[in-house]
Amino acid sequence: MRRWNGWGDEATVVELPANGAMFLAERISEGQPLPDASLEQVLARVPASRLAPHPLISLDAETRVRHARGQSLPDWLAMREGDFGLFPDGVAFPETPEQIRQLLGLAVERDLVLIPYGGGTSVAGHINPQAGERPVLTVSLERMNRLMELDEDSQIATFGPGASGPQVESQLRARGYTLGHFPQSWELSTLGGWVASRSSGQQSLRYGRIEQLFAGGTLETFAGPMALPTFPASAAGPDLREVVLGSEGRFGVISEVRVRVTRLAEQESFYAVFLPNWSQALKGIRSLAQARVPLSMLRLSNAIETETQLALAGHPGQIALLEKYLALRGAGAGKCMLTFGVTGNRAQNAASLKQARRLLKGFGGVFTGTLLGKKWEHNRFRFPYLRHALWSAGYVVDTLETATDWTNVDSLLNKIEASLRTGLKEEGERVHVFTHLSHVYGEGSSIYTTYVYRPGGSYAEALARWSKLKRAASEVIAQNRGTISHQHGVGRDHAPWLPVEKGPLGMAALRSLAQHFDPEGRLAPGVLLED
Amino acid sequence: MRRWNGWGDEATVVELPANGAMFLAERISEGQPLPDASLEQVLARVPASRLAPHPLISLDAETRVRHARGQSLPDWLAMREGDFGLFPDGVAFPETPEQIRQLLGLAVERDLVLIPYGGGTSVAGHINPQAGERPVLTVSLERMNRLMELDEDSQIATFGPGASGPQVESQLRARGYTLGHFPQSWELSTLGGWVASRSSGQQSLRYGRIEQLFAGGTLETFAGPMALPTFPASAAGPDLREVVLGSEGRFGVISEVRVRVTRLAEQESFYAVFLPNWSQALKGIRSLAQARVPLSMLRLSNAIETETQLALAGHPGQIALLEKYLALRGAGAGKCMLTFGVTGNRAQNAASLKQARRLLKGFGGVFTGTLLGKKWEHNRFRFPYLRHALWSAGYVVDTLETATDWTNVDSLLNKIEASLRTGLKEEGERVHVFTHLSHVYGEGSSIYTTYVYRPGGSYAEALARWSKLKRAASEVIAQNRGTISHQHGVGRDHAPWLPVEKGPLGMAALRSLAQHFDPEGRLAPGVLLED
Repeated sequence: MRRWNGWGDEATVVELPANGAMFLAERISEGQPLPDASLEQVLARVPASRLAPHPLISLDAETRVRHARGQSLPDWLAMREGDFGLFPDGVAFPETPEQIRQLLGLAVERDLVLIPYGGGTSVAGHINPQAGERPVLTVSLERMNRLMELDEDSQIATFGPGASGPQVESQLRARGYTLGHFPQSWELSTLGGWVASRSSGQQSLRYGRIEQLFAGGTLETFAGPMALPTFPASAAGPDLREVVLGSEGRFGVISEVRVRVTRLAEQESFYAVFLPNWSQALKGIRSLAQARVPLSMLRLSNAIETETQLALAGHPGQIALLEKYLALRGAGAGKCMLTFGVTGNRAQNAASLKQARRLLKGFGGVFTGTLLGKKWEHNRFRFPYLRHALWSAGYVVDTLETATDWTNVDSLLNKIEASLRTGLKEEGERVHVFTHLSHVYGEGSSIYTTYVYRPGGSYAEALARWSKLKRAASEVIAQNRGTISHQHGVGRDHAPWLPVEKGPLGMAALRSLAQHFDPEGRLAPGVLLED
Repeated sequence: MRRWNGWGDEATVVELPANGAMFLAERISEGQPLPDASLEQVLARVPASRLAPHPLISLDAETRVRHARGQSLPDWLAMREGDFGLFPDGVAFPETPEQIRQLLGLAVERDLVLIPYGGGTSVAGHINPQAGERPVLTVSLERMNRLMELDEDSQIATFGPGASGPQVESQLRARGYTLGHFPQSWELSTLGGWVASRSSGQQSLRYGRIEQLFAGGTLETFAGPMALPTFPASAAGPDLREVVLGSEGRFGVISEVRVRVTRLAEQESFYAVFLPNWSQALKGIRSLAQARVPLSMLRLSNAIETETQLALAGHPGQIALLEKYLALRGAGAGKCMLTFGVTGNRAQNAASLKQARRLLKGFGGVFTGTLLGKKWEHNRFRFPYLRHALWSAGYVVDTLETATDWTNVDSLLNKIEASLRTGLKEEGERVHVFTHLSHVYGEGSSIYTTYVYRPGGSYAEALARWSKLKRAASEVIAQNRGTISHQHGVGRDHAPWLPVEKGPLGMAALRSLAQHFDPEGRLAPGVLLED
C-alpha cells in the first residue's frame, strides 16, 4: 500500500549502510531523529467537510488526508509531524471527460475551488489546499489511466491523464512500444501531471522532454473542452500545446493526453566512466552533447556526489578496489562519475558507444564497463526512498534543480552549492551538498543539487532551516540566469521567483491567459502565479 | 538587384529546357503568356502618402512599391500586372531596438497601423497593407542584420531580426558555425520572419525547426520590451517563446533573436535512392524517421514529381540512361525519388549511410550515389526562380503545404492532389499536380504540393483560377486533419481555415492574447486572426 506520509510503497524499504551513516556523521554531525505521528492522530484532526455529498465526491477523512500533501520537504515535515494544516473538503474521482465537465460545472454552481491531482508527487506545492472561504475539491484523475488508442502507423498513443509511469509503460510494452519518459517520480507520477508541469525524464536525450512527447489532447475548461489536435509539426500560429504544457492546472483539467511513442529498442545499455576532475568532466559532457552523439542518457556527478554515492552504495570493500583501479588510471581524489546510456539498434549503439568512449578518453575518462551502469539502472527510481533512510538516521534531505547555458553552468552550480553549504552557519550547522547534471543539451544543462542537514530539535526548526536554505538557493538561481525549475514546475514554492525570469510583460501575458480561462480564479489558485 | 516584381536577384535566370516545355504542353496544353507591367507604370499609380515626414521613415514611391507585396501567387499576379491595389504609406528602416520602440510610440501618437517586415517573402499575405482609414507604416528590419554576439560555450548566437539566410550563415561560417536553417526562401527570408512564422528548413531533421533553434530574444510591444531569456530547457510555466513563435507580428516586433548554432560539420553528403513505387517509398521514409536514423535531410517525391523533375532537369539523354538503369533494377514506371543527407563526423555519417541504405534496400530502393544528391544541393534554393521560367512559357505555378500524422499522409495527399487536378474542370483546363514529403517526423510528415495551370486570357482569370484551386485544397486540408500550414504560416490567406484546427476555445485564447498585447489592433491587422 502507498505510504500516507512519505514516498512510495510501504513494502519498499531502503536502508542506509553502516559506512553511509558514518560518512554523514563525519560531514554533518550525528543525526537527530524526530518522532513521527500516526495516521490515527492525523485522522482525528481532520475537520468536517464543507461540501455537500455528491456521487462523484468522497468526503472520507483518510482519502482527504491522502490527497492533502505532495512530496515537497514542507509536505514531508507536515506529514511526519501529523500537522497537515489544511485538507481538501473532498476528493472526486472522475472516470470520464464528461464527469470532469460535471465537476467544473459543480465548482461554478457551488462556488468551489478545484485542485487537479495526478500522482500527488509535486515537490513544489502544486496540490496543497489554500486557506479560504470557498470549499476545496481535489480532482484525482487516477481512475482515468487507460491506453485508449494506439495508432501504430503514427506512433501516437492516447491515454487517460491519470496513467502513472508504470501504467503507461506496461500498457505500451504489451504492444511493443515505450514512451521513454522516466522522471525519478515515475512510479507514482502521471502523464497528465507531466504535461501540466513540464516534466523531463532520465532518458530525455533520446526521447525528449514531455514537451516533445505531448502530441495533443484535451483540456477541460470552464468554457468547454479545448481540443489540441495532433500534427507532426505546424506553422499555424502560436502552439497551444505549449500553453497547456506548464499550465499547472490553472487553465483547465487535462482529460486526455496523446503522446508520441517509440518501438521498444533492440538493445539498451548503460555505462560508467570516471573523469579525473570536474573541469575535464564538464568539458567531456558538453562535447558529447554538442557533438550530437546519439546517446539516450547522460548523468555527471560532481566530485562530492561521486564520493557520496560510492559511500552510500554499501560494499565498502568492492568500492575500495574500484577506487584503487581508478586512481591507477588517473582518476583519484576529485574524480567524477559519468553515466551514459545507448538505446536503439545494435549497429547504432555500437557506433555511439565507440564515439562516446573515444571522445571521453580525450578528457582522461576511465571506462568501467556496464557494472555500475546496471546498478544505476536498477536503482534509477529508488532515490526518493532514501529520504526515509536518512530521516530515520536523523537527517533531512531535499533536492533542487535548475538549468542554465553552458557558459554559466559551473558558476551557477558553485553559487548554489555555496549558498546551501553555508546556509546554516548562524545555526552552527554543516550542510552536506552535492550535485549532478542529468539533462544536457547543446545549449546548456540542468543542475540537480541535493542537500542534507540536521533537523534541529523540532519540526518547526527543521522547516525554518529548509526555508532558509531553499530561499537562499532560489535567490541565487533567479539572480544568476538559472530557470527556477528545469523539471519540477513552479507550484507555490517557486512562484515568488517566476517573475524574475518571465519579466513583468511575460507575467502579464500569463495572467491574462489565466484570467481568460478561469476568470473566477477557481483552479489551483496560488499555483504558478501568486495571487 | 532584387526584382521588384518577382523572386530573387535579377542576375539569376532559370530557363525551362525545351523538353520541359513539351512535357507541360502535353500535360496541360500550350502556355498562355500574359504581358507584364513596367516599374514606371506602377510608380505612376502610387498615391500620395498619408504620413507626415519623419526621420526614420521613407515616403519614396519605389520603396513603397517594393514593400507592398510578398511572394504569394496573388502577389505575383498583382506585381506582374502592375495592379498593386494598396501600398504602405511609408517604410521605416529602424537600426536599433530603441528605434523600433520609437516607431511603436509613433503608431500610438499618430494612429497608425504597423506591418513588421522581414524579407518580404511571405507566401500567405502577411505583409500586404489592408484598406482602412489609418495610415499604414511598414517596418522593415533589414538594417538590423548583424551577428551581435556568439557564445561559443553555449553555442548561442545573437542576431538582429533582419538577418537574411545568407547573412546569418556567412557571419556564422566565418566563426566555424552554422544555424542549419535552410528554407527554400533562404536567400531572402530573415531570422525574425522565420520566428514570427514558424519556419522550417530543408535540414530540419538534423537541426530542428525554428522552434528548436530559437533560444530567446526580445519582442518590442506597446507596453515595452518583453525579454525571453535563454535556458536550455525549463519547467517554469508555459513557454513564452512558443507564444512569440507564430505570432506573425500581431503581438509585437521582434528586435533581437538568439539562436542555437552548431559547429560546421566535418562532412556532409546527399544521396538519391529510387523506390519502385509510392507505397514502398512511403513505408521506407516512415521507417527511416521512426528508426531515428541520424540523417540530416529527407525528401521523397511522388511518381509524378519524380517524372516532372527528371523532365525539367534538361539533359534528356542522360536521364534516359538513368531511367534505363533504374528500370533494370526494378524502379521503372511509377518510381519515386528519395533524396537524403548525412551531416556530421565521418564515422557517424558512415554508420548512418549504412543504416539508411540497408533499410531502404528492404523496400526495393535502388541507390544511385551522390550525383543527383549534389544536383539537389546545387539547386536547393532555385525552385522559386522556376516561377519566372514557367510564367514566360505561359504557365502559373504555385505550391501549398500541410502536415499530418502518418496514418493520414497518403489519404490526405491524394485528396489534395485530386482537388487541384480536377479543380478547373468547369473551365475545361487540366492542372498538372505533383507532391513531395520534405519534413518527416516519427509522427507524420509534411506534404508539399505543386500545381501548374494556365492563366486563361487575363490576370483576373488567372487569379480567379488560383482562388478556386487554393480554396478547394485548403478546404480539403482543414477538413481532413491537416494543419493549414507546416512551414509558411497563416497570414491572411490561411486565416479563414485556422479556426478549424484551433477550435473556438483555441481561437478565443489567441484573440485574448492579441487583445492583451495590442488592444488597439495596430499590428498587422487581419494577419493570423481574421478581423
